[in-house]
Amino acid sequence: MRILVANANTSEEVTATIVAEAERFAGAGTTIRGANGRFGARVVGTRTETVIAAHALVDLLAEEAADVDAVLVGMSFDAGLWAARELLDIPVLGMTEAALLTACTVAPRFGLAVIGGRNAQTTRELVASYGLTGRMAGLTVLDATPQDLLADREAFLRPLVEDVARLAEEDGAEAVVLVGAVMADIPRLVQERCTVPLIEGISAGIVMLEGLIRLGLPKAGTGSLAPFAGRPSIGLRPPLAERLAGVSRSGQTEGPA
Amino acid sequence: MRILVANANTSEEVTATIVAEAERFAGAGTTIRGANGRFGARVVGTRTETVIAAHALVDLLAEEAADVDAVLVGMSFDAGLWAARELLDIPVLGMTEAALLTACTVAPRFGLAVIGGRNAQTTRELVASYGLTGRMAGLTVLDATPQDLLADREAFLRPLVEDVARLAEEDGAEAVVLVGAVMADIPRLVQERCTVPLIEGISAGIVMLEGLIRLGLPKAGTGSLAPFAGRPSIGLRPPLAERLAGVSRSGQTEGPA
Amino acid sequence: MRILVANANTSEEVTATIVAEAERFAGAGTTIRGANGRFGARVVGTRTETVIAAHALVDLLAEEAADVDAVLVGMSFDAGLWAARELLDIPVLGMTEAALLTACTVAPRFGLAVIGGRNAQTTRELVASYGLTGRMAGLTVLDATPQDLLADREAFLRPLVEDVARLAEEDGAEAVVLVGAVMADIPRLVQERCTVPLIEGISAGIVMLEGLIRLGLPKAGTGSLAPFAGRPSIGLRPPLAERLAGVSRSGQTEGPA
Amino acid sequence: MRILVANANTSEEVTATIVAEAERFAGAGTTIRGANGRFGARVVGTRTETVIAAHALVDLLAEEAADVDAVLVGMSFDAGLWAARELLDIPVLGMTEAALLTACTVAPRFGLAVIGGRNAQTTRELVASYGLTGRMAGLTVLDATPQDLLADREAFLRPLVEDVARLAEEDGAEAVVLVGAVMADIPRLVQERCTVPLIEGISAGIVMLEGLIRLGLPKAGTGSLAPFAGRPSIGLRPPLAERLAGVSRSGQTEGPA
Amino acid sequence: MRILVANANTSEEVTATIVAEAERFAGAGTTIRGANGRFGARVVGTRTETVIAAHALVDLLAEEAADVDAVLVGMSFDAGLWAARELLDIPVLGMTEAALLTACTVAPRFGLAVIGGRNAQTTRELVASYGLTGRMAGLTVLDATPQDLLADREAFLRPLVEDVARLAEEDGAEAVVLVGAVMADIPRLVQERCTVPLIEGISAGIVMLEGLIRLGLPKAGTGSLAPFAGRPSIGLRPPLAERLAGVSRSGQTEGPA
Amino acid sequence: MRILVANANTSEEVTATIVAEAERFAGAGTTIRGANGRFGARVVGTRTETVIAAHALVDLLAEEAADVDAVLVGMSFDAGLWAARELLDIPVLGMTEAALLTACTVAPRFGLAVIGGRNAQTTRELVASYGLTGRMAGLTVLDATPQDLLADREAFLRPLVEDVARLAEEDGAEAVVLVGAVMADIPRLVQERCTVPLIEGISAGIVMLEGLIRLGLPKAGTGSLAPFAGRPSIGLRPPLAERLAGVSRSGQTEGPA
Repeated sequence: MRILVANANTSEEVTATIVAEAERFAGAGTTIRGANGRFGARVVGTRTETVIAAHALVDLLAEEAADVDAVLVGMSFDAGLWAARELLDIPVLGMTEAALLTACTVAPRFGLAVIGGRNAQTTRELVASYGLTGRMAGLTVLDATPQDLLADREAFLRPLVEDVARLAEEDGAEAVVLVGAVMADIPRLVQERCTVPLIEGISAGIVMLEGLIRLGLPKAGTGSLAPFAGRPSIGLRPPLAERLAGVSRSGQTEGPA
Repeated sequence: MRILVANANTSEEVTATIVAEAERFAGAGTTIRGANGRFGARVVGTRTETVIAAHALVDLLAEEAADVDAVLVGMSFDAGLWAARELLDIPVLGMTEAALLTACTVAPRFGLAVIGGRNAQTTRELVASYGLTGRMAGLTVLDATPQDLLADREAFLRPLVEDVARLAEEDGAEAVVLVGAVMADIPRLVQERCTVPLIEGISAGIVMLEGLIRLGLPKAGTGSLAPFAGRPSIGLRPPLAERLAGVSRSGQTEGPA
Repeated sequence: MRILVANANTSEEVTATIVAEAERFAGAGTTIRGANGRFGARVVGTRTETVIAAHALVDLLAEEAADVDAVLVGMSFDAGLWAARELLDIPVLGMTEAALLTACTVAPRFGLAVIGGRNAQTTRELVASYGLTGRMAGLTVLDATPQDLLADREAFLRPLVEDVARLAEEDGAEAVVLVGAVMADIPRLVQERCTVPLIEGISAGIVMLEGLIRLGLPKAGTGSLAPFAGRPSIGLRPPLAERLAGVSRSGQTEGPA
Repeated sequence: MRILVANANTSEEVTATIVAEAERFAGAGTTIRGANGRFGARVVGTRTETVIAAHALVDLLAEEAADVDAVLVGMSFDAGLWAARELLDIPVLGMTEAALLTACTVAPRFGLAVIGGRNAQTTRELVASYGLTGRMAGLTVLDATPQDLLADREAFLRPLVEDVARLAEEDGAEAVVLVGAVMADIPRLVQERCTVPLIEGISAGIVMLEGLIRLGLPKAGTGSLAPFAGRPSIGLRPPLAERLAGVSRSGQTEGPA
Repeated sequence: MRILVANANTSEEVTATIVAEAERFAGAGTTIRGANGRFGARVVGTRTETVIAAHALVDLLAEEAADVDAVLVGMSFDAGLWAARELLDIPVLGMTEAALLTACTVAPRFGLAVIGGRNAQTTRELVASYGLTGRMAGLTVLDATPQDLLADREAFLRPLVEDVARLAEEDGAEAVVLVGAVMADIPRLVQERCTVPLIEGISAGIVMLEGLIRLGLPKAGTGSLAPFAGRPSIGLRPPLAERLAGVSRSGQTEGPA
Repeated sequence: MRILVANANTSEEVTATIVAEAERFAGAGTTIRGANGRFGARVVGTRTETVIAAHALVDLLAEEAADVDAVLVGMSFDAGLWAARELLDIPVLGMTEAALLTACTVAPRFGLAVIGGRNAQTTRELVASYGLTGRMAGLTVLDATPQDLLADREAFLRPLVEDVARLAEEDGAEAVVLVGAVMADIPRLVQERCTVPLIEGISAGIVMLEGLIRLGLPKAGTGSLAPFAGRPSIGLRPPLAERLAGVSRSGQTEGPA
């Protein structure tokens, strides 16, 4: 199986970290390929950058997803996830989505830990968009930047462990989802200091995608994810424009009109 | 007052229609300016095109919003709305958002009429994202394309009138929101054939924005819409890249770090 | 445009304050008229007084609303709002409703500040009745009476500013609605000490009503707000009894049977 | 035990019917007293009349409730229910509330049958106000007036039986609540023609009130139902004005300030 | 009237306490009979024990419910409640369900007090299963075991009183439900130290059941609670196996096939 | 990997079918073992049988789960699922839960098809218990018994295909979950006749469990799923009694007190 980890951030360092974590959990015979957005923020951290990243995701998928079996959207806000599902006919998961669904299998209600205050609300919106607000026990904000995490890991981890404990004891969380690509290796580092399972989206997403590939569900032919073609556009990079138009690079029209 | 009607579609015809409708409802002393997305679909009708349009919206706002007092996002899915609110410090409304909030002032529960089956689900998601699902009585799909509407208006209007009646009688809708920029002038054409108020987003948005301009609420300094600067990026058109970086075109850094 | 600010409280002082605030935000060419309830509590502060006030509202509207273009219900619990919408065929807004809808346009989730502990629950019920509980981040109670506010404004304002900060920092509110007619001028006094927008209902309601007047939506002919007539009653003041009966003061029957 | 059936309608015929039904279900040793509103609609059927009725309810309770052990609000919209709970320190139930809570004990989800199209939405709002929307399977509207019901009972009952069947078969209702005081004796007439239990509020309310009287729960001293006194008012009938002021008819002040 | 208090715990001491409390609130002419589960935990306190208890409940009802008029499930999680309603054609209430419905009649929103941290989540799930989450103001956990309660009542009561006060003041609870059979006599002991009503399920259930018996609602013939028969099984105690098969002990087949 | 498919039904035929389907989707190196409940209904189809099945599940797991890596609860109502998660420290999934979570990854909203009218409501309750009601577009009931399905497959499949089409076209379902162990092989038979993906729980559960095994999340040490021991009981089969007591068969006490 070939899984593309599509990181709509444009910094290759984060992608490298994600790919390494993905490979750690990938099954025998699964190959992981990473890809970055061609444009947009170095590290997405605002709403504006998130909408750019969603475009960057479909742009890179139009170019890179042809020869893979599944896609993991490797960005905490799962930007562009449903558009990617519309665009492609292979399984696609968002990393936070995967973590949330996995949390549902081990905990009646889960907590969330996010980095940076401006992400608290957008994460709540993401959970709500999945219809999972009722499963959410609480949310804690780590007052740090992704850079802090990379700089002094132990200074970052200590308050995280305390926050996890508080989510469990006060809010009744029975698992905690760590939100954000930079958190990918954190569970391995601090799980043993926590009384509830820690879940992050890269590992959760990879193993769930391998299952979905084997399940082989067909793409819906009707509804909001149905195939499309013949969509004129301007100003887009050629692979995406061609994909919208339903014209393959060899010049043939694809899909339904 | 100067209001920018930002249409993330790239077809100028639709923008011209919207602007005309906006001008019809604008108060004395209000000037309306229209602007199109620089890239993306001619007429947005898929999830993929919607995420492109959200990027196109912030891209065009970075270039065009400097000298206006408010922005109306003139596209049915309000793509990029909250990003625009983060990016700017003037009032911004989505056209469907404005129609929904207006509907809340005249009806305990409202219906929605959307064009094209694949938009039913995305419209439901939009209503849910505003937390207004509880106010929604029902949704009807007009089996047509925006092109049909432009081609033979009466053939389009007859089933619409029937759908409105059904939403009122069977679902208990006490107003009906017509979703989509191409619907802007429909209320004027068929209101008298319907027993409940028809609401569309351009007129609703313009008069609400004029009020918000007068209200003069400040931009939040904290939370998910707080100002930002110093955000490095690649591959974006200069006005947006500069806006993310917080560097004005004259070379000065703006806003908080 | 003529807007009636209908204050179902029976104290003229509060009405005078509200009218002054309304005039401050009214557009050129808009005239504001205030009117008090003919019976009921001096200052409504209990559930019992609120139901009396709702009757007092429709009673005064039957007498006073004939020659205006819109009505703002100038009382924090918006008592009688939907009855007023049924009774009249012009736009009607509740002051707290207007503030909540306005908050929806600037904040994904808002906080509320109410005066007096017994109002916390009734305010929650009001927000729920509008279907907006999902947009509510938190609620804070100012342990004061409206009289305290009038007596020593600064002693009142200091804890309010702290509460607003706590709603923003701990609960994630990105705007705060100040609930209550006596709060009408507070935003002007303390906005600059707060990091998120403060919204109150008189200013929000006036500018929104001016827009609704221009929008000119028709009254629904079916459903729970449809016109009525021929309703016999006893013991009501004549204008309301006549309005229920559908008999105009000149003796003619009005409206549908 | 003495139970007051407080009918905020002003027609004595309906009250007589309700009282008769209440007496049929009252336990040995329970006496039922009926009382009408002193002002308002003959038969409440609009939102405007409902807010008048809520005032009429507290007005009549201030005069009539002194020597009873419990109150049943005998009007379909339970108008003024929570105000009555604030005003009194004895158990108070709304007739529709009682029917809904009873339905919860026999059916996972219930249906509702209401008379007259304009009551559909107000009934939905009532169910929502009790937080019971999730237990509601569907709602059917009987296209009739209360007068029709009184005129030709069998012509009324046949479509009702069909509607109940449809609620059970299509919507999954496992009980059906008949909404409205005029429905009080319907369950006895048609239960045997229906496959699911029919519940109406007078019988449900009387037996539940007898239980609540025996339970003897104290009145809350804090919150939105707490006792109050010292509330100045104008224009109210003396018993209610005195009750608000906390002055007993003998001239003494009662309750907390 | 004969009411069976069915305690799916297997310890007779708790049953004796419950029965005593039930008798205290039973009306004249009502006889209470207690019965224990034949198998399962001494005192149910885990999810595993709860599912065993649900089976124990239907097992004991198959044996013991033939000659009673109603059943009160005397166990805090109301385990097996809906199955019991399917199995029998007499009124059945869960003790916590009864307490919650009673709380709905005296408080807009209620708090809950549970014993032991692992019961917090299961109690939340129970409230949600009744569709009453929207009426819940908060939940407090008493860090104790049922044994502690029995050992030193005053040491148990003091923190309970504080928790009730906190639920009222901070969370806005206007009544508090004490969850658990061992709490049955607590309201009598500490009500006077609390400002809001305390409600427990045995007393609430008994008086409500007496009302339901008088109401005499029929069993639904369709839906998820409909009668059944002819169900083959293995390994069950004879009364339950016979009940599933629809074969009475005298050898006759009962009910529909 | 070794996965136990625990079918709380007591008929071995259904288990054999489930195991066959599970093996079809199991990865290389995964072995599937089936096990039946030791007591209870042949084929669970009522609420009463479901609570018996939940006990049968934990009973059989106490005996059979010691040497496997994960458990799939192979029964449509996922009876006893959370108890199993409490009891064991390996991944456990319910078959319907797995299907629902999988549906969430391919469709914004899904439909459900259930066999037999009395299962409609219990399935709704199951979906609600997972907090997924908001993702549910509709539910259709196949008027058949599991026996019908086994007897004449084509007569069963034709209406199913029509129901799926209706769920997609009218209700907006973009995937359909087939509920019930007997449906395990249906997707393979009719997927090509349907425009949206069909999902059933055995295949979905097996591939998801393989992923969860690899993920290796630890068991929570606190909350409602925490380990327990020292729980006295009576009348249970020895493996379960010993497991509750925390005494291994060799006589040693295990786990926390």
